[in-house]
Amino acid sequence: MEIFRLHILGCGSAIPTTKHNPSSQVLNIREKLFMIDCGEGTQLQFRKAGLKFSRLNNIFISHMHGDHCFGLVGIISTMALLGRTAGLRIFLPEGGQDVIKAQTDYFCQDNPFEIEFVPFDSRKREVIYQDRSVSVETIPLKHRIACAGFLFRETQGPRHINREMCDFHRVPQYMMGRIKNGEDFVNDEGETIANSLLTTPANPARSYAYCSDTAYLPGLKEQIAGVDLLYHETTFAESEAKRAAETFHTTTTQAATIAAEAKVKRLLTGHYSARYTDIRPLAEECRRIFARTTAAEEGMCIDI
Amino acid sequence: MEIFRLHILGCGSAIPTTKHNPSSQVLNIREKLFMIDCGEGTQLQFRKAGLKFSRLNNIFISHMHGDHCFGLVGIISTMALLGRTAGLRIFLPEGGQDVIKAQTDYFCQDNPFEIEFVPFDSRKREVIYQDRSVSVETIPLKHRIACAGFLFRETQGPRHINREMCDFHRVPQYMMGRIKNGEDFVNDEGETIANSLLTTPANPARSYAYCSDTAYLPGLKEQIAGVDLLYHETTFAESEAKRAAETFHTTTTQAATIAAEAKVKRLLTGHYSARYTDIRPLAEECRRIFARTTAAEEGMCIDI
Repeated sequence: MEIFRLHILGCGSAIPTTKHNPSSQVLNIREKLFMIDCGEGTQLQFRKAGLKFSRLNNIFISHMHGDHCFGLVGIISTMALLGRTAGLRIFLPEGGQDVIKAQTDYFCQDNPFEIEFVPFDSRKREVIYQDRSVSVETIPLKHRIACAGFLFRETQGPRHINREMCDFHRVPQYMMGRIKNGEDFVNDEGETIANSLLTTPANPARSYAYCSDTAYLPGLKEQIAGVDLLYHETTFAESEAKRAAETFHTTTTQAATIAAEAKVKRLLTGHYSARYTDIRPLAEECRRIFARTTAAEEGMCIDI
Repeated sequence: MEIFRLHILGCGSAIPTTKHNPSSQVLNIREKLFMIDCGEGTQLQFRKAGLKFSRLNNIFISHMHGDHCFGLVGIISTMALLGRTAGLRIFLPEGGQDVIKAQTDYFCQDNPFEIEFVPFDSRKREVIYQDRSVSVETIPLKHRIACAGFLFRETQGPRHINREMCDFHRVPQYMMGRIKNGEDFVNDEGETIANSLLTTPANPARSYAYCSDTAYLPGLKEQIAGVDLLYHETTFAESEAKRAAETFHTTTTQAATIAAEAKVKRLLTGHYSARYTDIRPLAEECRRIFARTTAAEEGMCIDI
């Protein structure tokens, strides 16, 4: 199966601690790297994870709070110093490009590569990126400022050729592409061979949803229904539900409820408040409602 | 003796590596913290060093290259989130305040404390800070952009009272302040008792010079003559002298030569190019010329 792998570079929240870095993740889809959020120190975490800057062409910023974007100018400067020439695309909520551009204009005057800012309307669900292997859709979230999550959905691959059956039915080589795409085969005798006899099903298209930062948003479940992996912020334990509501964040119980109702395959927690030095009890609270919960930690790597 | 302690938070150069953080140091003078440069990730290094944000009121930025200031907005945000109310002073080369202020205006809109930017002319040597315990003078350096080092000089303390001798000569209590400051004492009989009989010498005023980033600047030796500790960048080994000159940086041999000619007490090297995974050979090169050389490393703490 092709790579569809999530690297956790940071899963702390606004105040960095010695345990947790601010938000950043990298999704490796068939050796293309997609960065999601870029808090301070992300470039160092990126290096520690053994990732390659040359494979990173797209960065997605959920919202313009510092713990999700202070690392941008640093990573851009470093790529410039490393002599990058390939363009870099930065997707971010409308308006955010101005403050980032002001920094890159000042600090990266001799930047040898182009930065394309792709602002999006965080209130709308829309496909903001698409290539042969993956599409990325925004997930409108509810935070103190404009904020969107991201749904990465692998493009459905072609069906797999059943070589023996194709040989048996004398399917010519030039037909193989169409067969992979589901066409039936009509042989020289005019007889139709059903595609299902000639192929086996395609690999299931995998999906990953990133939802941070957001207040408890029960409506989210429709948008992320059935994803293979859901990263949902659990800034607070259930006991801090009041504080969570005030700051537009989510508790463990709320995140697990969404995961259960959306029937996702796995839940990954993160964006932990600095008050939690031990995050295991947070995951434990989630597991009471949704068993397949994993607590994100820096350096973690998950194959989806 | 009162505290005069240097913490190394980062001693790498432009490209951060997994070994070295970008430039930042904290000088603890009698429990007041003075930060020098603030590269990306400094706030985390500050925490790891066990330092307290509440004791940090003054930050000195040598120049506006990212590896010396990208951490500013992050540390300011965190102090705001921690509810700081005391003002913060940021000394930086003229013009630098605009780009930092643009960031704090955007990201720290509800900042509960005031930031005072104190721009200085990096071409002039001048005292930019002074309090009861210390003065800070700029040291004009030669880099690709406006850049200054900083000379921290402890205020000469008062002489120490020799209690027994003062009792013997019946020096009244109200005279003690003047005796500490060097006055002689005239007793009731009109007899003059020399101050040197009543006191012992004050502690020597200590000094620390920070010189980074700079091309080899032989004239520096007059400005830093005899300091207790000199931090001088050694971005490159002697074999890279050409590259050092091109990029306005200094080699090991050059830095050690300055240390020797300035007759400083100790040399601390740093701002290592990312190409050096082992920095010991760099310090070794320095020691051939100036024996009392120490290679700075993250987490190091030096009592001056």
